[in-house]
Amino acid sequence: MEFEESGIGEECGVFGCVAAGEWPTQLEVAQVLTLGLVALQHRGQESAGIVLSNGASPPTYTAHKGMGLVSTAFPPEALMKLRYGNLGICHTRYSTTGISELQNCQPFVVDTLHGQIAVAHNGELVNAHALRKKVMRHGVGLSTSSDSELITQLLAFTPPMEELDAPDWVARIKNLMTETPTSYSLLVMYKDVIYAVRDPYGNRPLCIGQLVPISKLHSSGSGEEDTEGWVVSSESCSFQSIGAKYYREVLPGEIVQISKHGVKTLSVVPRPEGDLPAFCIFEYVYFARPDSIFEGQMVYTVRQRCGRQLAIEAPTDADVVSTVPESATPAALGYAQQSGLPYIEVLCKNRYVGRTFIQPNTRLRQLGVAKKFGALTDNFAGKRVVLIDDSIVRGNTIAPIIKLLKEAGATEVHIRVASPPIRFPCYMGINIPTKEELIANKPEFQDIAGHIGAASVQYLTVEGLVTAVQQGISSLQEKDKMISSSNKTSRRVGHCTACLTGKYPVELEW
Amino acid sequence: MEFEESGIGEECGVFGCVAAGEWPTQLEVAQVLTLGLVALQHRGQESAGIVLSNGASPPTYTAHKGMGLVSTAFPPEALMKLRYGNLGICHTRYSTTGISELQNCQPFVVDTLHGQIAVAHNGELVNAHALRKKVMRHGVGLSTSSDSELITQLLAFTPPMEELDAPDWVARIKNLMTETPTSYSLLVMYKDVIYAVRDPYGNRPLCIGQLVPISKLHSSGSGEEDTEGWVVSSESCSFQSIGAKYYREVLPGEIVQISKHGVKTLSVVPRPEGDLPAFCIFEYVYFARPDSIFEGQMVYTVRQRCGRQLAIEAPTDADVVSTVPESATPAALGYAQQSGLPYIEVLCKNRYVGRTFIQPNTRLRQLGVAKKFGALTDNFAGKRVVLIDDSIVRGNTIAPIIKLLKEAGATEVHIRVASPPIRFPCYMGINIPTKEELIANKPEFQDIAGHIGAASVQYLTVEGLVTAVQQGISSLQEKDKMISSSNKTSRRVGHCTACLTGKYPVELEW
Amino acid sequence: MEFEESGIGEECGVFGCVAAGEWPTQLEVAQVLTLGLVALQHRGQESAGIVLSNGASPPTYTAHKGMGLVSTAFPPEALMKLRYGNLGICHTRYSTTGISELQNCQPFVVDTLHGQIAVAHNGELVNAHALRKKVMRHGVGLSTSSDSELITQLLAFTPPMEELDAPDWVARIKNLMTETPTSYSLLVMYKDVIYAVRDPYGNRPLCIGQLVPISKLHSSGSGEEDTEGWVVSSESCSFQSIGAKYYREVLPGEIVQISKHGVKTLSVVPRPEGDLPAFCIFEYVYFARPDSIFEGQMVYTVRQRCGRQLAIEAPTDADVVSTVPESATPAALGYAQQSGLPYIEVLCKNRYVGRTFIQPNTRLRQLGVAKKFGALTDNFAGKRVVLIDDSIVRGNTIAPIIKLLKEAGATEVHIRVASPPIRFPCYMGINIPTKEELIANKPEFQDIAGHIGAASVQYLTVEGLVTAVQQGISSLQEKDKMISSSNKTSRRVGHCTACLTGKYPVELEW
Amino acid sequence: MEFEESGIGEECGVFGCVAAGEWPTQLEVAQVLTLGLVALQHRGQESAGIVLSNGASPPTYTAHKGMGLVSTAFPPEALMKLRYGNLGICHTRYSTTGISELQNCQPFVVDTLHGQIAVAHNGELVNAHALRKKVMRHGVGLSTSSDSELITQLLAFTPPMEELDAPDWVARIKNLMTETPTSYSLLVMYKDVIYAVRDPYGNRPLCIGQLVPISKLHSSGSGEEDTEGWVVSSESCSFQSIGAKYYREVLPGEIVQISKHGVKTLSVVPRPEGDLPAFCIFEYVYFARPDSIFEGQMVYTVRQRCGRQLAIEAPTDADVVSTVPESATPAALGYAQQSGLPYIEVLCKNRYVGRTFIQPNTRLRQLGVAKKFGALTDNFAGKRVVLIDDSIVRGNTIAPIIKLLKEAGATEVHIRVASPPIRFPCYMGINIPTKEELIANKPEFQDIAGHIGAASVQYLTVEGLVTAVQQGISSLQEKDKMISSSNKTSRRVGHCTACLTGKYPVELEW
Repeated sequence: MEFEESGIGEECGVFGCVAAGEWPTQLEVAQVLTLGLVALQHRGQESAGIVLSNGASPPTYTAHKGMGLVSTAFPPEALMKLRYGNLGICHTRYSTTGISELQNCQPFVVDTLHGQIAVAHNGELVNAHALRKKVMRHGVGLSTSSDSELITQLLAFTPPMEELDAPDWVARIKNLMTETPTSYSLLVMYKDVIYAVRDPYGNRPLCIGQLVPISKLHSSGSGEEDTEGWVVSSESCSFQSIGAKYYREVLPGEIVQISKHGVKTLSVVPRPEGDLPAFCIFEYVYFARPDSIFEGQMVYTVRQRCGRQLAIEAPTDADVVSTVPESATPAALGYAQQSGLPYIEVLCKNRYVGRTFIQPNTRLRQLGVAKKFGALTDNFAGKRVVLIDDSIVRGNTIAPIIKLLKEAGATEVHIRVASPPIRFPCYMGINIPTKEELIANKPEFQDIAGHIGAASVQYLTVEGLVTAVQQGISSLQEKDKMISSSNKTSRRVGHCTACLTGKYPVELEW
Repeated sequence: MEFEESGIGEECGVFGCVAAGEWPTQLEVAQVLTLGLVALQHRGQESAGIVLSNGASPPTYTAHKGMGLVSTAFPPEALMKLRYGNLGICHTRYSTTGISELQNCQPFVVDTLHGQIAVAHNGELVNAHALRKKVMRHGVGLSTSSDSELITQLLAFTPPMEELDAPDWVARIKNLMTETPTSYSLLVMYKDVIYAVRDPYGNRPLCIGQLVPISKLHSSGSGEEDTEGWVVSSESCSFQSIGAKYYREVLPGEIVQISKHGVKTLSVVPRPEGDLPAFCIFEYVYFARPDSIFEGQMVYTVRQRCGRQLAIEAPTDADVVSTVPESATPAALGYAQQSGLPYIEVLCKNRYVGRTFIQPNTRLRQLGVAKKFGALTDNFAGKRVVLIDDSIVRGNTIAPIIKLLKEAGATEVHIRVASPPIRFPCYMGINIPTKEELIANKPEFQDIAGHIGAASVQYLTVEGLVTAVQQGISSLQEKDKMISSSNKTSRRVGHCTACLTGKYPVELEW
Repeated sequence: MEFEESGIGEECGVFGCVAAGEWPTQLEVAQVLTLGLVALQHRGQESAGIVLSNGASPPTYTAHKGMGLVSTAFPPEALMKLRYGNLGICHTRYSTTGISELQNCQPFVVDTLHGQIAVAHNGELVNAHALRKKVMRHGVGLSTSSDSELITQLLAFTPPMEELDAPDWVARIKNLMTETPTSYSLLVMYKDVIYAVRDPYGNRPLCIGQLVPISKLHSSGSGEEDTEGWVVSSESCSFQSIGAKYYREVLPGEIVQISKHGVKTLSVVPRPEGDLPAFCIFEYVYFARPDSIFEGQMVYTVRQRCGRQLAIEAPTDADVVSTVPESATPAALGYAQQSGLPYIEVLCKNRYVGRTFIQPNTRLRQLGVAKKFGALTDNFAGKRVVLIDDSIVRGNTIAPIIKLLKEAGATEVHIRVASPPIRFPCYMGINIPTKEELIANKPEFQDIAGHIGAASVQYLTVEGLVTAVQQGISSLQEKDKMISSSNKTSRRVGHCTACLTGKYPVELEW
Repeated sequence: MEFEESGIGEECGVFGCVAAGEWPTQLEVAQVLTLGLVALQHRGQESAGIVLSNGASPPTYTAHKGMGLVSTAFPPEALMKLRYGNLGICHTRYSTTGISELQNCQPFVVDTLHGQIAVAHNGELVNAHALRKKVMRHGVGLSTSSDSELITQLLAFTPPMEELDAPDWVARIKNLMTETPTSYSLLVMYKDVIYAVRDPYGNRPLCIGQLVPISKLHSSGSGEEDTEGWVVSSESCSFQSIGAKYYREVLPGEIVQISKHGVKTLSVVPRPEGDLPAFCIFEYVYFARPDSIFEGQMVYTVRQRCGRQLAIEAPTDADVVSTVPESATPAALGYAQQSGLPYIEVLCKNRYVGRTFIQPNTRLRQLGVAKKFGALTDNFAGKRVVLIDDSIVRGNTIAPIIKLLKEAGATEVHIRVASPPIRFPCYMGINIPTKEELIANKPEFQDIAGHIGAASVQYLTVEGLVTAVQQGISSLQEKDKMISSSNKTSRRVGHCTACLTGKYPVELEW
């Protein structure tokens, strides 16, 4: 709950689809894209954009962008004009700054000497500032503050500028990857191909799915010959809603070409000698949907393990375990299983309350976040409650909840937090409050329990979190043979914990 | 989940507020009304309306109505013009028919010989057809199909028509109550008073709350002298979000006057000799929010008891118990507690999917409701699952869920339904599919398990449901002394189970 | 120009259409109604409404209402649902008060004992207050402040209330006409018939047109057998845009039945002995579109005659004659023709300026109405200008124009006003500023020329206006034999000049 | 009227404003810009955009763009955020192609090595295709098809790229002007300065106005010391509505710097030896508002002279002269004055008809454009009418008008067209139908009178038009000393008549 209230957020989700076989395709590409994007809506609610290509030579592109949720941004009349297309990419964006304008909305499309390219990007370039200067020094004006435009212009001007013939986009993408180490998961559409790219550190997720006939969706025997199309997505949770099978992850540093002919690795750009991969650990902790799969393991299971680990690290003398709905529930169930305490529900969430325009001005403001919840009094009156939350970020939203529970009859409320305290900024795509706003950097953190009115407060340790995450990967190492050769490299275990530890995967130079 | 998908719905929610003490009040009445209404949003999402009175003589009324959720219907500019008011009523409406027009939106306001009255209504008059004829025979044209307008005109013309002096609204309300036995929970605003009325059978809920200073919200010692205002609502769940304390239910047949001077019973219209109360049992089963309190017990607790009762009536040889999120969760936890089987989560719901405009036309339609869910595979692969749902209404939404779970690795899926089959229409305010659409009336119901692909299917019995509901009331009978005298009558136990049994509380004459 | 700026306005326009011949008709009734209504848009821009009937027994009505211009109020999706219908009525409304709500929008439809009736009304009932009381005393609640609802309820309850059989609507309409003398032009739709009614004083206009094949639109030989439908409209200007021929006026007091079988006079309710007709003279002066025909003469011609009359009454020693565009142009051309002075244009109007949301706060407010106009300097620099305006109502808009012209080089600006000063309120459907706001009632009117900076100011006299209007009718008296018998009565000449003279056609009793 | 119906249109209007004196200014710059833009609305109704700068170092820019008329594109909440600013530019755009997207909307703002620049452009680059290639060959991706983005990127990359220090924008603008000869009138905003630029041929208009206190607006004695700000606009008609005095035109090839310190010529880029200026003659004929001033003369006067010239070239034996409202009225009055025939009005235009969504499908389509007009029958029945229109472009809109007049009683209708036939495409900013669509290129043009049903048809000759236009300039040559030195060059007379003659001012190379 704290994460939701604190304004912490992922910057984006990307999704692409290429129809397999002969074109024009019978596959409703725009529908697949839209529903796939809806399944990534939790990664960004500010704006949404889509670009379709018919894949012809020269290709015709059709685009639409809009503010708000996909359902608002893509009204019926917009979907009408997107009926035709053999491939396409789309994007949903999180509001990271106050500047929430349509022109920052992705995918970004530009006309180049060789025709139009479209780019969708999840992540944040650590050296964006220097790269912008470089591009502008070359004489290019940048019309937005988005990294996506920057990447697009870098791809457009990266030497060598081949005259008139088909450009070598792969060489240009590789060149781009030498210019900026992280963080990006990219989709680049050009004519009839989508290039799916993950930075060498694998900081942001990206995975591939295979569209098969619905009837063969769950049969193990569906082979390449049944393929109706290929999809590529920030998270695998989007595959269920469009009838796609999980195929594999794009590996750190990998450039994959997705076309009607299939999926093909074009190159794997290596990290500097000695560097570990740095997949964002917060994808597991908070951002991803629980049914998504990263590094071979389900996010829900990792969160449950975090709860179990927390029960080991921070046991409590209490009567019941509960959750602040809804994101902390897997951890709460894990805590209950490990501790043997019964799991109950203590709060009922009003899912409509967030949307009113009302600016409460006196009495109602005092109710704080508690007005979003009803207490399920009978379940816990007279009991000692262990309440699991996914984080305490700013520290001003858990207090009213504790007050509510105590006033409704809980004799003690112990807070157990299923992640370590956030203390440092992220420069790789996560929107985190300023250092000063983070409760873990404030004096009152010394007596956090007293500050928020809890009987006790304990966080998961960084080591505990890393263990909970990597334990599932270790157990998978040997049996996972999906992508044999390159796999050896990629399965070296490593995660970015910069916001918890201040150790960034690359040197920060501004 | 089935209820949500089946189109079953409550017709309305009503909410009112009167500021206590001296007027003009400092209380933000419009804010209280709007937030109170938001908390009743689950009872109706089609339209919302609000009417404020300054309570002066003659009073000035300010009204606003709009389509959609409260947040859409009441945009900031509308809320601006509602800043002033000492009392008011509001209403949220469910789309029961295709006719979803602004003019059917409540509250209904008319000008009478004695000034304006405003009426908000939850329920459905069983003899509406005959009453419409009666009103029109008197020469009144009716501009909408809403019962609310009908009630308003009945109040306006009910003899005796007192000339010029203040009208005896209580006599008129009593007269109205003799004209129509059920079902209605009414708010009638006239000048500086709200009359809160519940039909003699108490078919629809209505309860009263007391606004106290936020600081005294949970102190037991707050007395009448701390009252900042009175609220009246379809459900007590709305009290938490505005900082009100639960005061009491309006009793079946009771006419309560709510004014700045307090709450006063004006009359209790009795039922015919021998008739039991007939509070709608589906308020417990599905409509109400789990944190609401009816007849002294929390709805969540009743649902949990339904789950326990179901475990007694229909035990299962299985490994785990789970829920179709979100409404069946209390029953699933109850079933798990009673059966001793572990409770786990098997499905992850995409809360954004319902809102896209996409009309899936071939492959995506085949995915059915399953595209709303992600399977949490690791939690149940290789296991026998007992899946608790709140109902099976049409029977075409549970099958894809079962398929999804089996394909994700469940070895068996047993369905346990926490309510009895729905077989009959409701004429008292619930929107139920036609008799022919109800699965319980179809031939395939004989082999419902085979039809939906479950290992077994069992429903809660009507007796089991009634036991689960009334058991909590019985235990409360003696200690509940809140409203002493009239209480004796009201606490005779009885519930309307017409949609399950075909036994209607009153004779239906059309 | 003054009229436009002053807020003076007509209250409404009504329009109806019945398809002739066999039903279902091939005629696009909704299209005819919409385009007909657009042609009456100058009579009201606040809201628009339409009701269609299929004319079956029982009939199905389809309705739509919206705020703003017809083009805004009837968006494409609304027009879609109006595709079917054999007859219908529609209405456009002027914002007479601050209360600009959808529920006041006409036509008003109510369900009665005998089925639905729909009413559209142009005018204002002089005894509305007493009638509202009468209706409410009968026990009817009124949900709006509109006369249209009042009329509808009066028709619904007027005795005798016939039980169950078909009602005698004509008797009820006649009864209504005895209850209220003026002012109303009414369309009442019931099942398959439209009743077109004009009050006994004929205060508001109403005329009938015949839809013929476009190819026969201008041939004199088209007879009844070519009729594709009948239309009825506040003004004949609407006929051109839908391809209808002018048929005739509805006479004062006449009740006309329009059905697929044709047009039939059902009754003519007489005025009290000795009373003259009282057609609103301002329909000629300002409200009507110049190409409309009243009492056999074209409005443009009357306005031109006013200009000629003004040249006779108030000749000027000047060089050129011009107009404040656009409504004063016919009078200006008449003045030029009569005076022999050349007609030129002096002002160019920016037709977009009125629509911006800008609230000019210092320098721009000083520019006043002049910022709507560009001076065509070269046309009048160094000349003495006679400027014709249609009225001076409040007197604060002409001054900046005069200033503009003088600064652009006019040596003298003489104002000649093509209507007499407005001094009195209208209770029959025209929105006029309060008595205090009218310049003619203010002290500065004594030196109006000095006040507004003109070299001289002269108004048309009331006698001059009446002459200009009635001269055309007189010349028509003998040759007009269209509706022979009743015609004799109706062509007694008389006009309502109450706002100029204070002489109202009926006694005002409140 | 033909122009309006034919889809011929100007591509854009530009407007800028700089507050004079000390900053922050008291002048409401956003208001001045918005009202100035509204006065240019006739030059483009598709979209509108505005960019304000506070002029600080580094500056803060605030921008807003929207679709539709200024009043729609700039809703109140958008105007709110534009309250602060010391200078700004804005733009209104005409829909020249089907692609009517927000991203093509101007002004175009990009970030460069030296900070943001904003560009607004009226015109069309004749060598846009080659320039786009050049920019893209340099490695710049172009995100829109607009010339404005192209110009902006050309300015950004034009060598020499000065490193880090202030850039020499004037050198870059001069460089741009050598790259593209025509057509453009440009506003370039950078920090605290607006550069106003007109191409060497002066193809598109641009002029400067001086904001003075309203009280001194028309006094001849206001000097520089009274200046409140400077405005620059496509047309001088915008000055009246904001209280600005006409100052002077920007000359062909001139680069003017407008700052708080005043107006300063930085450079005048010459045409190739021997080339004449080529101001678009259609600005006089149709596009400009009649009260605008070009080359020292009022547009209205030129149109009137065209009418006089037409009367000389093509006299008619008729009774009356009239106009197709509204744009042909000055020519009609000129024709009447020259010919001695009386001027009358024959048509009344319904100004609301254009906006309905109705798609007439059978009978109503037959009415064609005539349904926009009412015939003022009494004015011309039995008479021979000379009808002046401003053009006949496609030839399918005048025929229904002629039919209407004849059916309403005109004995003969003679068409006189106040401009020569359009036969050739424009590549310099005017949207003209394809060559095949132009009536003058069709076989039926041989008998145009018979084709449209007129008694006779005659066009103004090209020579006649040029005479009517240049005659006013000649008479001004000697007395015009406004901008003495450069003036000598600029006042060499020459106009672009390419669409009439096929003679383009520059060689067209694609």
